[in-house]
Amino acid sequence: MAQDTKVNGVNVDQLLSTIELIKEKPELAQFKFRATNKWIDGTYNRATVKDFYGAGQEDTTRDPVVFEIDEPPVLCGNNRGANPVEYLLVALSGCLTTSLIAHSAARGIDIKGVESRYEGDLDLRGFLGISKDVPVEYQAIRIYFKIDADVSEDKKEELIKMAKKYSPVFNSIAKPISVSVGLDKTGTPLSKPAAA
Amino acid sequence: MAQDTKVNGVNVDQLLSTIELIKEKPELAQFKFRATNKWIDGTYNRATVKDFYGAGQEDTTRDPVVFEIDEPPVLCGNNRGANPVEYLLVALSGCLTTSLIAHSAARGIDIKGVESRYEGDLDLRGFLGISKDVPVEYQAIRIYFKIDADVSEDKKEELIKMAKKYSPVFNSIAKPISVSVGLDKTGTPLSKPAAA
Repeated sequence: MAQDTKVNGVNVDQLLSTIELIKEKPELAQFKFRATNKWIDGTYNRATVKDFYGAGQEDTTRDPVVFEIDEPPVLCGNNRGANPVEYLLVALSGCLTTSLIAHSAARGIDIKGVESRYEGDLDLRGFLGISKDVPVEYQAIRIYFKIDADVSEDKKEELIKMAKKYSPVFNSIAKPISVSVGLDKTGTPLSKPAAA
Repeated sequence: MAQDTKVNGVNVDQLLSTIELIKEKPELAQFKFRATNKWIDGTYNRATVKDFYGAGQEDTTRDPVVFEIDEPPVLCGNNRGANPVEYLLVALSGCLTTSLIAHSAARGIDIKGVESRYEGDLDLRGFLGISKDVPVEYQAIRIYFKIDADVSEDKKEELIKMAKKYSPVFNSIAKPISVSVGLDKTGTPLSKPAAA
């Protein structure tokens, strides 16, 4: 049996056959990703990621991944985890990196190393409700990539443009998204008392 | 010395005095949050959160928090971590929860428990570049809250609206944000070879 072709550690045969399969059956491209959150105390809460729907079926095979979320002391927390706006940068970092690597792999571009750094500007007057003129959201996010590959600087700039173009998280942040929030009407009670 | 007043585990005295201080010195409200990312192999990469700037100074006191990011096998990965679009839901969950808790605390509303669940719809044809008519980003995110508190259902709906209004991550996703991505021109090399 021939071994699968890997570029940048990505199984390109699997990637290309997935693309061909989805062209034939677009319903296989519909994914639903999920998370749950449970408040613990003050600015401390815990999120869990486990199941998702994709490729035509529920996937319940993964072990749960648990995330501790808190604020630093200057924001009334105890550093029991990174804070929510930092998690947003983590999401962005993972997505741009994977997008760059996978799309380079699909084009046969060998990447030796990728590192990136992220900085977002937040004016706390928005969150605190001190001024209506101050945005609540990040005012700007700046990202800097280092790419080790035997290609020109111009080509590296192209790879970055490609990473942006195909990154779901980048586009979810750069563009407006429909986010609905409401009360859970399923009637089931909370799992157990949350407050310490 | 009188003990600080806590509501929902939030030090309300600290919260209110922070608000008063920032009204006098708005520059203290300027925060910069950061993350770094290093590609490891294929769809597997690692993000680190540590320092931030806020309240007029650099904070370098935190220990680094490290996040493993990967895709499930159906998306060419090995489940070595949650995937980037799941991290986005984690960020959203932490921010809406903290916003609900903190703003309830500031208003003296006692919350006994909060749980929430998140589901986002992603059509993989966007990421794969199969169809230009399919958005790359989440098409919609739905969120459901359970709140245990001695208030009416209407009041709970109000708390949810309040949580949305003041949540930096909710507003960063629901609204378009300026995200710039470019090559790192600082000239320092990558920290070490990344690919396995």
